[in-house]
Amino acid sequence: MERDIKKIISQMTIEEKASLCSGLDFWHTKGIERLGIPSIMVTDGPHGLRKQAEGADHLGIYNSVPSTCFPSAVGLASTWNKELINKVGVALGEECQAENVAVLLGPGANIKRSPLCGRNFEYFSEDPYLSSQMAANHINGVQSQGVGTSLKHFAANNQEHRRMSTDAIVDERTLREIYLASFEDAVKQAQPWTVMSAYNKINGQYASENNYLLTDILKDEWGFEGFVVSDWGAVNERVASLANGLELEMPSSYGIGEKKIVDAVNSGQLSEEKLDQAVERLLTIIFKAVDNRNENGVFNQEAHHQLAREVARESMVLLKNEDSILPLKKAGTVAVIGGFAKTPRFQGGGSSHINPTKLENILEEIETVSGKNTTVLFAQGYNLNSDEVDDHLISEAKEVAAGADTVILFVGLPDRCESEGYDREHLRMPENHVRLIEAIGEVQSNIVVILSNGAPIEMPWMGKVKGILEGYLGGQALGGAMADLLFGDANPSGKLAETFPKALSDNPSYLNFPGEGDKVEYKEGVFVGYRYYEKKNIEPLFPFGFGLSYTSFEYSNLKIDKKEIQDTDCVLVSVNVKNTGSVAGKEIVQLYVKDTVSAVIRPEKELKGFEKVELLPGEEKKATFTLDKRSFAYYNVDLKDWHVETGEFEILIGKSSREIVLSDSVHVQSTVSIRKPVHRNTTVGDLLSDPVLAPIAKELLAKANENNPLINMAEMESEASEMMAAMMQHMPLRALVNFSQGQFTEEMLSGMIELLNGQQVN
Amino acid sequence: MERDIKKIISQMTIEEKASLCSGLDFWHTKGIERLGIPSIMVTDGPHGLRKQAEGADHLGIYNSVPSTCFPSAVGLASTWNKELINKVGVALGEECQAENVAVLLGPGANIKRSPLCGRNFEYFSEDPYLSSQMAANHINGVQSQGVGTSLKHFAANNQEHRRMSTDAIVDERTLREIYLASFEDAVKQAQPWTVMSAYNKINGQYASENNYLLTDILKDEWGFEGFVVSDWGAVNERVASLANGLELEMPSSYGIGEKKIVDAVNSGQLSEEKLDQAVERLLTIIFKAVDNRNENGVFNQEAHHQLAREVARESMVLLKNEDSILPLKKAGTVAVIGGFAKTPRFQGGGSSHINPTKLENILEEIETVSGKNTTVLFAQGYNLNSDEVDDHLISEAKEVAAGADTVILFVGLPDRCESEGYDREHLRMPENHVRLIEAIGEVQSNIVVILSNGAPIEMPWMGKVKGILEGYLGGQALGGAMADLLFGDANPSGKLAETFPKALSDNPSYLNFPGEGDKVEYKEGVFVGYRYYEKKNIEPLFPFGFGLSYTSFEYSNLKIDKKEIQDTDCVLVSVNVKNTGSVAGKEIVQLYVKDTVSAVIRPEKELKGFEKVELLPGEEKKATFTLDKRSFAYYNVDLKDWHVETGEFEILIGKSSREIVLSDSVHVQSTVSIRKPVHRNTTVGDLLSDPVLAPIAKELLAKANENNPLINMAEMESEASEMMAAMMQHMPLRALVNFSQGQFTEEMLSGMIELLNGQQVN
Repeated sequence: MERDIKKIISQMTIEEKASLCSGLDFWHTKGIERLGIPSIMVTDGPHGLRKQAEGADHLGIYNSVPSTCFPSAVGLASTWNKELINKVGVALGEECQAENVAVLLGPGANIKRSPLCGRNFEYFSEDPYLSSQMAANHINGVQSQGVGTSLKHFAANNQEHRRMSTDAIVDERTLREIYLASFEDAVKQAQPWTVMSAYNKINGQYASENNYLLTDILKDEWGFEGFVVSDWGAVNERVASLANGLELEMPSSYGIGEKKIVDAVNSGQLSEEKLDQAVERLLTIIFKAVDNRNENGVFNQEAHHQLAREVARESMVLLKNEDSILPLKKAGTVAVIGGFAKTPRFQGGGSSHINPTKLENILEEIETVSGKNTTVLFAQGYNLNSDEVDDHLISEAKEVAAGADTVILFVGLPDRCESEGYDREHLRMPENHVRLIEAIGEVQSNIVVILSNGAPIEMPWMGKVKGILEGYLGGQALGGAMADLLFGDANPSGKLAETFPKALSDNPSYLNFPGEGDKVEYKEGVFVGYRYYEKKNIEPLFPFGFGLSYTSFEYSNLKIDKKEIQDTDCVLVSVNVKNTGSVAGKEIVQLYVKDTVSAVIRPEKELKGFEKVELLPGEEKKATFTLDKRSFAYYNVDLKDWHVETGEFEILIGKSSREIVLSDSVHVQSTVSIRKPVHRNTTVGDLLSDPVLAPIAKELLAKANENNPLINMAEMESEASEMMAAMMQHMPLRALVNFSQGQFTEEMLSGMIELLNGQQVN
Repeated sequence: MERDIKKIISQMTIEEKASLCSGLDFWHTKGIERLGIPSIMVTDGPHGLRKQAEGADHLGIYNSVPSTCFPSAVGLASTWNKELINKVGVALGEECQAENVAVLLGPGANIKRSPLCGRNFEYFSEDPYLSSQMAANHINGVQSQGVGTSLKHFAANNQEHRRMSTDAIVDERTLREIYLASFEDAVKQAQPWTVMSAYNKINGQYASENNYLLTDILKDEWGFEGFVVSDWGAVNERVASLANGLELEMPSSYGIGEKKIVDAVNSGQLSEEKLDQAVERLLTIIFKAVDNRNENGVFNQEAHHQLAREVARESMVLLKNEDSILPLKKAGTVAVIGGFAKTPRFQGGGSSHINPTKLENILEEIETVSGKNTTVLFAQGYNLNSDEVDDHLISEAKEVAAGADTVILFVGLPDRCESEGYDREHLRMPENHVRLIEAIGEVQSNIVVILSNGAPIEMPWMGKVKGILEGYLGGQALGGAMADLLFGDANPSGKLAETFPKALSDNPSYLNFPGEGDKVEYKEGVFVGYRYYEKKNIEPLFPFGFGLSYTSFEYSNLKIDKKEIQDTDCVLVSVNVKNTGSVAGKEIVQLYVKDTVSAVIRPEKELKGFEKVELLPGEEKKATFTLDKRSFAYYNVDLKDWHVETGEFEILIGKSSREIVLSDSVHVQSTVSIRKPVHRNTTVGDLLSDPVLAPIAKELLAKANENNPLINMAEMESEASEMMAAMMQHMPLRALVNFSQGQFTEEMLSGMIELLNGQQVN
């Protein structure tokens, strides 16, 4: 429907305008009946809808309307399957329409700076490219159904500890290349209807009143067209937040926020134009929701459940498969051990926690999938509500395990270990889970461990088991997915979207997480995740991008369509992948770019492309990638822009970040020249390495150095010549005055600088 | 002689005053004949005097008057022997008097941030406490002879790369606890006559014009009474440097600096009082030099040579001694291999490079010390002037080695690898040195490697040799010292004053050394040296404080005189050490302090005391230590002062930083209470953990939370209670407004804050 929003605004009082900028309650925006402005509903839940049942407490976490629970973001990302994430988005959008929800509060694109962050399961990756691509496809899926999203938590909300008061100190290059880049493509490619500002401060300012983030970057630079909503309770000072780009305060401040806005406009502290702009953004989205409302929306619960199972299968990552213990034969005796098999851990705690339409029992699914020739035994192994070892349960489990051909062991992190609201303090599983593995290892050599957890754990017990399947938080259909993978009805195709370190102390944020008081300094800079482990030569437990399959893949025929480009050009890369095994499978082809020489400190390589390719046995397909300026660029804080240094870049094709199988290179020519003016403290070495200035500088320096004893020494004493050369190299021009014994004067220095700067202009 | 310096100043013209603030030439201050102000001489050389021969080129590095070459600072520090360093200082002072040198330009107290720094051999340690103690004893020794020192390079001059233009970005706590602490005790305990400002910038300002460093901290806070001299050519803008606390520009600027000062005073840009203060500091030291001048000074070359040998023996560190291969028997056939045995590497390159009074030939010393029953063979092994492997020399060396009972292998870093002026780029020895070890390893199993180098190297060949003696740069008497140690005439007693990492990438500064362009960020913060390796659980090749002996020591009876102190008290610690072996030896007892719980990020432990104890076989002595506030404190940037947090501190007695043999603890009570005012963003958790505020806060919060659904949820849903508790914990007071559903107002919030802040005052 065509509407003249500007006209509507012109009919509104200041009080009405201000009222729109704060919620009605916990889950609704305010409406204004006389102007036909409706109230719309927003709800939590990036991997499933969490709509409070009518009349239920507004914040009741565990009493929402039933909806499909898909795998958490960590699992979605591990699929590396853009189309599949898009399908999940479509399904979520359908469920929103069915429940009359206008905006879904997700996805979350925060970077996994530390494996300890309590909310990591809700985020995609340690890598901004992968994270941003996943977010964009999620958003596109939801919004294709006429339902909005809220890309969150913008930005640098990388821990739960003191999340509402902590100040993330992040240098600008790191912010741009890592923490903002994770949002950037999602905004540019998918235009989420809303973006949710984070609780924390960034470099001294609350995210919710940060003009640089909300206005300069998000709206002006990235072209975000929707509105910014606060995380629930994230508004510090309402007027400052509005002035700096936050349109909607949530939940309601029950008149307080509105009154402050009205007072500020009346006193001239805030311009009415600014308020009008906010209202225009709000109304645009509110009416978009109205116009896209499908009154007859319904969704097929069973179809969504099947989609959840498909996604769960692709989200799980096979980490170890010694002696090809997997897939298991559908025969013999299998012991299923661990309480999670009957009471699965399938989602994380907090605002994303939903009430599933149904929930598969893993044990039952195993019984179904393994078929009638398989005997399935069960033992509990541990108490679900305690970390303490129960010797009785252990003995029982050992007995069951001893009588089986194979043990499938379900362990991981119980609900209490991971949640919104608090961070973990270590990477260990509960004592009773670890002890169970060790105990079973005493009586059984064929052990497959299935993990349920939202973030990396340490695995000191790894040598005791033959198989490890990382199940993450697999959603409501995790049981069937696990059974399918265990018995070969499906082939694992997930790969890690995060590094598993051997020990917590290996993690790059270790020295500075969760910070001191209300300050957390991101001193590791751009060296987050694999960028750090690679640069520091620290071997991880499992690297970023790693995951096994029941088949094998061969790579060949890497082609780059140009050997030399300008940074304004694109380059096309292709590579052939062949399934050389005997079962169908999917391979995630990863493309990394490495800058071979750089004046700035850069990671060894960075992910710049990926494709998931489905292949029948013997089948071969071509994966293609397009690289552009950003694929080669770093963020130059002086230019305040992305910049490519002229030079050679390696194009690396990998099965994981550590297993590079093919490589070639391309020469990129910068179209931007960076030349700093010559000044008193320009060094001799810098002058002589500048191709334009070197010839003339040489002549001038010869004169300046006529009486410089350093130069004479360099010629006289060969033993010292390397030192003298280095000293001259690093010598600023002004110091030549001291070393010329009075021959080179300040006036001559000024003249020299003027001459060289004139030279540059030509 | 009593002089009225203020009166002399009152007789000076502005031009005369300004003239004193710049050197006469490279090595002299200016004199003013009419006022009886003499010119005094300064010379390079913390481990030996580098006085240019009269008439020689002023900067000639290798043509100075002969003087005793003691081990470089890295070796001096490895003795951990304060009395011995003091003796070296006394000897240096005597040589200065004999040569009419008023001020010796040293010692250097810069911290070894990276093992790559080209000038590390001139610095003491990675630990500020050890470094500062060594510097203080050095200074006290020199100055006891009426000769001044110049403590350098103040500050944060931790690399040679772009040293005259780079900007060291160091947070204040790190600067205080690491980089300045290394100078602090030396200034306070020893009052060097002069301090030399560094070339580089610190946090955006040149060290030579940094008021915070030169005036606020050095003079006002630490009470430095002497004058500040620029490193040679370090003055950027002369007026700014004078205004900010640099009295003497060196070398001469041939009238330019003086003219700028005169113009600035005449134009009012610089006050004459400021200039007078500078001149007063200069004259005080110049006259002190004159008054302490000993016209008849001579020194005993042979006695100083013997001292150099004693120091060299204590400076060398026995790193490996498998099968007790050392000490060698004075019998059989010994093959001495490696060009260093005849052409020793005994000092580093650059301004500290001196012309020794004599230089021992290592091979000859071995022949002498090993006695007539030992046959000593020799092979060159490698070319001294090249890194390239010479197969002929290798074959020859293998043949010689094969015919011997034991091989003593001399390798390390040739002059070209380490020098003032440039940094190393890796930790490798030259290819021909490494290859030689490997080749000899093929024919001989009894190999002792003697290293000559100024900083750590990597040792991939370590498994091929039984003994490793780190000889560092041992000075002119290194040959005798090595022979003494090899054949047991002396017992090794040096310990490492720096960590040897397994690989360069393990080093804390690795990601940020030597920086980008003219900026180097010290992002590792206080985690320098062992502070990093310990916190990150990175096993070093050899840890800080490590060194072997030919005897064994047992520790017992650790006593702490009080179990509880206030931070204004001292605590006395004592421990017994017994020589349980069969030869005399010296043990370095190390005391570390560990803060068990801290609100700030602190190292695992820090060195706060050490004693070197000499023990005959069977003898036992008590080592004692006094700990004061600084032993427990960190630098609190908010207080702008050192601060001790109330709590338990462990006192750890170690044979090295990694080998702690005894420990106990002391409770320290802070006398300074840090309480921040309550404000809108004070968190609920912070209020409830404050013993004074908690009772009243609880009552107020109960009212504020009457309608807070988070609280209700926590009670209703036990599954979510941990999350809810954490959320409330981290909730700022102002957010209670949003979560109270309109019951808790801004006015109530203000009232609550006022009430709580009133409570604090009481």
